[in-house]
Amino acid sequence: MTQNIYDDPEFFEGYSRLPRSERGLAGAPEWASLRAMLPEIAGLRVLDLGCGFGWFCRWAMENSALSATGIDVSEKMLARAKAESDPAIQYIQADMDRLNLVRGSYDLIYSSLAFHYLKNLNALLGEIAGALAPGGRLVFSVEHPMLTAPRHPEWIESNGAKRWPVSDYLNEGARETNWLAPGVIKQHRSMTSYINMLIANGLQLLHIEEWGPTDAQLAAQPSLGDERHRPTFLLVSAERAR
Amino acid sequence: MTQNIYDDPEFFEGYSRLPRSERGLAGAPEWASLRAMLPEIAGLRVLDLGCGFGWFCRWAMENSALSATGIDVSEKMLARAKAESDPAIQYIQADMDRLNLVRGSYDLIYSSLAFHYLKNLNALLGEIAGALAPGGRLVFSVEHPMLTAPRHPEWIESNGAKRWPVSDYLNEGARETNWLAPGVIKQHRSMTSYINMLIANGLQLLHIEEWGPTDAQLAAQPSLGDERHRPTFLLVSAERAR
Repeated sequence: MTQNIYDDPEFFEGYSRLPRSERGLAGAPEWASLRAMLPEIAGLRVLDLGCGFGWFCRWAMENSALSATGIDVSEKMLARAKAESDPAIQYIQADMDRLNLVRGSYDLIYSSLAFHYLKNLNALLGEIAGALAPGGRLVFSVEHPMLTAPRHPEWIESNGAKRWPVSDYLNEGARETNWLAPGVIKQHRSMTSYINMLIANGLQLLHIEEWGPTDAQLAAQPSLGDERHRPTFLLVSAERAR
Repeated sequence: MTQNIYDDPEFFEGYSRLPRSERGLAGAPEWASLRAMLPEIAGLRVLDLGCGFGWFCRWAMENSALSATGIDVSEKMLARAKAESDPAIQYIQADMDRLNLVRGSYDLIYSSLAFHYLKNLNALLGEIAGALAPGGRLVFSVEHPMLTAPRHPEWIESNGAKRWPVSDYLNEGARETNWLAPGVIKQHRSMTSYINMLIANGLQLLHIEEWGPTDAQLAAQPSLGDERHRPTFLLVSAERAR
């Protein structure tokens, strides 16, 4: 089973105070880019893998989705999601490394910053491809592989210029980092693995984005400037063949 | 017009002594990976963009291609290619930033380590998509975006560990480097740009590889070990919709 760090009290406490937890989708700087990769939501059957506090499911229902289902491994996050959500949204606690989904039952599967925790992403992508209706779409984000590659991720600075040292990029596997709590386990995968796994599972690539702040975001929040030196997130949309 | 560094005497002299120039395809460590991305060559009409000394065109004809055409900007390279090749191979000197190709006239378009010199790759990909027959394939390599991003590319070492600092990854554009000769101009593009440009031009992604040495290559040539810290090349295959 994948590590469930979200129910660790220290991690949960820290995570709950992030802008994306307190303010929801609007608190995530990459949301505008992800949103641009989504199909028109009205009338769709939507599944969010790693739904956390349920912000995306709630947004989907507010935008006239036909149904919204959220899956997460974290009991604490689901408890808050249920307490704050439209009762029409279905929340399910499950390990995404061992998920069985009903075939052809969703038009949109979404996942924000969850797949890089999973050990068995290839099997999950097979489940996703089967669970999408023909023409259905998968839209997801992960930490960018340049972030997950180094065993000791850090910026270095010389002559006032920031640089991001990459190492072990082609050596995939577990990385232990200290983010909000010690000992958080992520799975490093290359761009190659993400993209070829999608294609091999019958999902046709539509668009990717290696996310960094826009000019407007930089003007409002100059501290984001370093994030143009290397992308923070990888955003992907793909479609099940019609 | 794109800089034609290959006809610079110092660059040409250095380039001619590289293993991939003296030994041809077998002298390029990424060739086995590129070859695995090619369709069966027999009977195909093949075009090589940035054909250099003509090694790929010659290999294609030896493997029963129906025809082979090589395009390059370098007069010196084409002169040697013509002198050493099967006269059935057609070589054309042209600037790939301003190329017009006959529509639907190729089954395979190949390009090795040329696209990262081009200013107007998007227009060329449009030409390529039009020049491929339905179901035709584009297979190409470029220097990996992690190599082309930094304005001062270099390995750094601390405690015996090599790392590759990335900077300006999301700031695309010209990079001046000193490789074989001073003042070589390359165009840095992100993975995002390469992939989305293909898709936007109607080329469906089939497979990518961020190339690094295999275990067998590492065993034979341990100095390649650093290349597992960050990929050297990006290899791509894509198909024109049938």
